[in-house]
Amino acid sequence: MTARLVLGLDVGGTSTRALAVDADSGVRLGTGRAPGANPLAHGLERSAENIAAALKEALAGRDPAEVHGCAVGLAGASRLAADPAAAARFAELWHACGLRCAVTLVSDVAAAYAAGTPEPDGSVLVAGTGAVAAAVAGGEPRRWRDGHGWLLGDDGSGFWIGRQAVRAALAALDAAAATGPLVESVLAAYPSPDPAGPAPAGPRARTSALIAAVAARPPVELAALAPRVFAAAEAADPAALRILDQAAEHLAAALGQVREPAAASPIVLGGGLLGPGTRIGRRVRAALAADWPAAPIHTAADGAAGAAWLAALPHYPADRVRDLHARLTGRAAEGESGNARTRRG
Amino acid sequence: MTARLVLGLDVGGTSTRALAVDADSGVRLGTGRAPGANPLAHGLERSAENIAAALKEALAGRDPAEVHGCAVGLAGASRLAADPAAAARFAELWHACGLRCAVTLVSDVAAAYAAGTPEPDGSVLVAGTGAVAAAVAGGEPRRWRDGHGWLLGDDGSGFWIGRQAVRAALAALDAAAATGPLVESVLAAYPSPDPAGPAPAGPRARTSALIAAVAARPPVELAALAPRVFAAAEAADPAALRILDQAAEHLAAALGQVREPAAASPIVLGGGLLGPGTRIGRRVRAALAADWPAAPIHTAADGAAGAAWLAALPHYPADRVRDLHARLTGRAAEGESGNARTRRG
Repeated sequence: MTARLVLGLDVGGTSTRALAVDADSGVRLGTGRAPGANPLAHGLERSAENIAAALKEALAGRDPAEVHGCAVGLAGASRLAADPAAAARFAELWHACGLRCAVTLVSDVAAAYAAGTPEPDGSVLVAGTGAVAAAVAGGEPRRWRDGHGWLLGDDGSGFWIGRQAVRAALAALDAAAATGPLVESVLAAYPSPDPAGPAPAGPRARTSALIAAVAARPPVELAALAPRVFAAAEAADPAALRILDQAAEHLAAALGQVREPAAASPIVLGGGLLGPGTRIGRRVRAALAADWPAAPIHTAADGAAGAAWLAALPHYPADRVRDLHARLTGRAAEGESGNARTRRG
Repeated sequence: MTARLVLGLDVGGTSTRALAVDADSGVRLGTGRAPGANPLAHGLERSAENIAAALKEALAGRDPAEVHGCAVGLAGASRLAADPAAAARFAELWHACGLRCAVTLVSDVAAAYAAGTPEPDGSVLVAGTGAVAAAVAGGEPRRWRDGHGWLLGDDGSGFWIGRQAVRAALAALDAAAATGPLVESVLAAYPSPDPAGPAPAGPRARTSALIAAVAARPPVELAALAPRVFAAAEAADPAALRILDQAAEHLAAALGQVREPAAASPIVLGGGLLGPGTRIGRRVRAALAADWPAAPIHTAADGAAGAAWLAALPHYPADRVRDLHARLTGRAAEGESGNARTRRG
């Protein structure tokens, strides 16, 4: 008898992850990884390519026609589902990948929340390339804060951090100030386009060259500077520390806007910026623990596991979904959250 | 005998102005106007079209081959002058317009400064679609603050104001808060793409629709929302007032970064946001008058007149350049600035 194969995908701005799971045993069968594939950031074609690559790698030779269920966590999922061109292109993609089951698009926020806790009610903060907070009820995000994209929002996100880093470099150039590790690192990230060519001239040549180099790439790629800011903060660069601490403030404030003051429901933190080992992750955890001392704080380590759990739910006995969650996310079934409720109880 | 015809152009993000002047008498011979033509914002082709239109209108049938000199004020002038493709395209454009004289590209900041004062040393703050401050020495901008473009800077600019207005609307939608005049006006500026179609659905439909509508146009067009913010501020909308007051703070701070604390040299304010009748203009003037009580504050009402004056300088006796400045800018030759120095003295 074939195991009940389900797939979870976590499609982000900088990476795409897929997880294939045996929904009977909760055993992880395979994982796949590809570059970022959010169609709102990368366009439909490149998105489809990267999603297909991650999906195939996770299936590791298994027949995609045997997949029972598939859930895909994706920023802007509702916007994409409402766009007929995108919906048609996705339908085509799933078909081309050989999937015969229904594929559910869920928001990246719902997938992150599911990766952190099986509780139906709580709140979630995700900070990677973008940033968004949401209140979750019955497993569904209901009230949101930010997630408005790089042009209008995503305060405290990887994009925001990268943009602040370039702003710090431009301010230093304007002031002809001494440059610290952060500014040096930003300038090194945008070398002169032709190192053999003539040195830039004119009163603002270095400034203009930096602005032009940033403008030559898609704006969202500013998020790629975030690791340079982390490194400069490790070297105690004051500008880098200020940027990261302001990012943490923005992120904690976003969660505060969707969460009741005395709530004891779980808080899930997802996205690369909010890991427990990062400066931002530590500061956000400290701020949240101060404001909601009774709330358990979980890390959504693997959005694809959250999506896989959501994909497995319809195929699973209600009294065992917490157990499955624990196995998929590698977390003990009891303990982290005291007041147990099953998701579908 | 033919009058010595000179041309000044002020090429901005939202409008292009041209002024034809008799450099012997200082008489204004004709003006021309066209939509924005900055090639960095609009592309070279559309830029060339609009510049040509404004130029022809200002010449009003006069033979362009008789123009003795032409100066063009343009944001990013040094960047464009260093770009061979842009330089070639501009050379082509001047030729196609029938000009046979040398054409000087100067920064919009230099043109604005020249429109405000004939003094060689001072400082200038320009806020329109973008925002920039500079210290001027010997008629040339030497030290700059901001002017970094919409993606990375231009704090307090028309773009910045428009972006803040949409952010205020998104925050109100997130909070499901009561909407005031500002938010109503922003939402009205981005009507649903198909009013006859189905109403948007989903948990964040209005938010997603607003973000998508903004993303469907070039980002710099957010500056077109600024008049809506002014109107909402007139209606005492607290969010609109806060945005304008923060814009004024950003702009005054930018000037403060390029100007010595005790300086008595003139300050020139240019661009649509900084007129003496606007809320931002009033607040910036009050802040600057408090910080530099000895400095005269001039308004650069007409960047094209500043450019025309710069174009006339090489053809003009040094002892009369202040007089010419007064006639071109419609300002009394004596009075506004006490300690007279000629520009080329």
